[in-house]
Amino acid sequence: MTQIQQSFQVPFTYNVIFTENMFSLENETFINFLKNFGNANFRKKILFLVDAGVAENHEYLPEAIKNYFANQDALTLVPEILVFEGGEKVKNDPQVLETILQAIDKHGIDRHSFVAAIGGGAFLDVTGYASAIAHRGVKHIRIPSTVLSQNDSGVGVKNGVNYFGKKNFLGTFAPPIAVFNDSNFLRTLSDRDWRSGISEAIKVALIKDLAFFEWLEGNAEAMAKRDEAVMFHQIFRSAELHVQHISSGDPFELGSARPLDFGHWAAHKLEYLTNFEIRHGEAVAIGIALDSVYSHLKEQITADELARIITLLKTLGFEIYHPALAENDKINLWKGLQEFQEHLGGELTITLLVALGKGVEVHEIDFELMKQSVDILKIS
Amino acid sequence: MTQIQQSFQVPFTYNVIFTENMFSLENETFINFLKNFGNANFRKKILFLVDAGVAENHEYLPEAIKNYFANQDALTLVPEILVFEGGEKVKNDPQVLETILQAIDKHGIDRHSFVAAIGGGAFLDVTGYASAIAHRGVKHIRIPSTVLSQNDSGVGVKNGVNYFGKKNFLGTFAPPIAVFNDSNFLRTLSDRDWRSGISEAIKVALIKDLAFFEWLEGNAEAMAKRDEAVMFHQIFRSAELHVQHISSGDPFELGSARPLDFGHWAAHKLEYLTNFEIRHGEAVAIGIALDSVYSHLKEQITADELARIITLLKTLGFEIYHPALAENDKINLWKGLQEFQEHLGGELTITLLVALGKGVEVHEIDFELMKQSVDILKIS
Repeated sequence: MTQIQQSFQVPFTYNVIFTENMFSLENETFINFLKNFGNANFRKKILFLVDAGVAENHEYLPEAIKNYFANQDALTLVPEILVFEGGEKVKNDPQVLETILQAIDKHGIDRHSFVAAIGGGAFLDVTGYASAIAHRGVKHIRIPSTVLSQNDSGVGVKNGVNYFGKKNFLGTFAPPIAVFNDSNFLRTLSDRDWRSGISEAIKVALIKDLAFFEWLEGNAEAMAKRDEAVMFHQIFRSAELHVQHISSGDPFELGSARPLDFGHWAAHKLEYLTNFEIRHGEAVAIGIALDSVYSHLKEQITADELARIITLLKTLGFEIYHPALAENDKINLWKGLQEFQEHLGGELTITLLVALGKGVEVHEIDFELMKQSVDILKIS
Repeated sequence: MTQIQQSFQVPFTYNVIFTENMFSLENETFINFLKNFGNANFRKKILFLVDAGVAENHEYLPEAIKNYFANQDALTLVPEILVFEGGEKVKNDPQVLETILQAIDKHGIDRHSFVAAIGGGAFLDVTGYASAIAHRGVKHIRIPSTVLSQNDSGVGVKNGVNYFGKKNFLGTFAPPIAVFNDSNFLRTLSDRDWRSGISEAIKVALIKDLAFFEWLEGNAEAMAKRDEAVMFHQIFRSAELHVQHISSGDPFELGSARPLDFGHWAAHKLEYLTNFEIRHGEAVAIGIALDSVYSHLKEQITADELARIITLLKTLGFEIYHPALAENDKINLWKGLQEFQEHLGGELTITLLVALGKGVEVHEIDFELMKQSVDILKIS
């Protein structure tokens, strides 16, 4: 037997840039980024895809984008700005993916041109997937418009759509070339959307960073009252921790490394059980509460530590229980654990807490204890 | 403006393993590879996808695969072995992609399980694409069955399907976890398929390796007469040069680096103009001849060097001209150059020769001289 060995590393770099009113004429951050990116010999176009939720709250946006790119020789703005619904349902609709691909084809977006997407997490998932598979990847820019996408999902390297009724059955690992976190998009969020993404900051703080957890405790009331400066700091630190986790680990999950998914196994199932009536961030808050109670019953964290977690979630306004957890004698929840195991490929891996700021991976769950955790949560 | 900088490298390694009769029970190369791959804690399955052309010529194959995996505890063979047509048309048919994805879903192939594909270049393109997007990438093994896929396309990192009538409009860069080049599959190739892939070896020799070009000259007759040892050496060296090119450059073509595509701009257009009646390798032979004549007319290679290239192609039995080159007063060919430029994103880059074994990139083509090259080729 003879063989040829192939071995190489592919470098990826991108910045998460914090800015405000990125399409106002005096803000040149975005245009300068575009002008300086890549080979100057290529004619570059930029296509915008906008989440309908953003478009409704920022009616000036299409006009602002057009003004922003007027008189720019280095770049050609595709005049048609595509607007379509965001939210989880966008990931279930093959027609949305098809429409984006058609636009990329029709407007001649090539591997050196840009597709910029403005929207929430689900919207960025589908636009990122389309950008990743068209021409084996066009240059993709993410402009997350929600707390959750700015502090977690939008700054990462995954994309995906649902298929065969399965979450993210189709997708790739495809880093964007840049992420622009524009604080202006957060101001128009409903209280529910303003709040829900904070659970991802709590998640990452709980398993990685006690100091950040304590900061969240100290600033929970201010965030609940929509204090912007405090919220922006939370987003920055959470995004930073998520970005660090990706680069310090196995970014494309080629081995058996796990993403940051404390509280997520139950959250995924809850989203399906409630037909996505609860937001991902709200489901994560409940998932965190559940796995924290379980961690306590396993004598890994103290009653006092558990109480601090529950108090933080409640201060922010999160529900920590949903009746769907107990549905069908809790068998539906049990199925969620099995599905999570299948998704991982045979070996179950669940993150639990051993302290505030310190997670640990376990490969077994005592489901009787988990059922007990649900009951405790109900009356907490 | 504040920002978070993200930077990481993703390592990829895979071997191109040369073997013979890989599913015979005494050949443990393949099973040992599978057993030793990845985390032993994961339950692994393997799904086979087989090109109908291979299945017809190797009727024993499904049975041999089943015997090979019988009594293997470490691995579960999916009993259904999928067989479907190969060739370029498989890349035009969305139903084929859908069928593979359905099989991956139905049989519970996860990110730690394997999809092994046995077939020619187009077949491997679509199976590789399905494997890359399902669950954000299942472990993919390529078993190329033709000269062209064993010496070039099968050992690389690209996949793709045609969409909107455009070649490889959808695709990704996704290295396989291994390539198994089984010489036994070559024995049943038609003379036409045996020959056509050799053009890719000539291509890479001409732009990179004079010694290999001279070896090809010295062994052309033997290859034309189906000397296996000589053919296997050609495949090994060509695969080696292609593998080295990928790792020494920009494997995912994130910058503006070019793949090894000497002679390919005209080849792509010829395939479309002839409705894929000529094989990719045959089109590449003509494309090489055309760009070699042009290189000579630009006084970059001598008449003697040009004659050696033409002689090598003819000795192997290649046609070096096709009437479609001159169709519509050569305007169709001219459009091919424009499409190639569009595909590249604005700046035209064509590889020409400056010597046997040395290519050079140019950014302009004198189309009057190219038309003259077509006329010369017609009478060569």
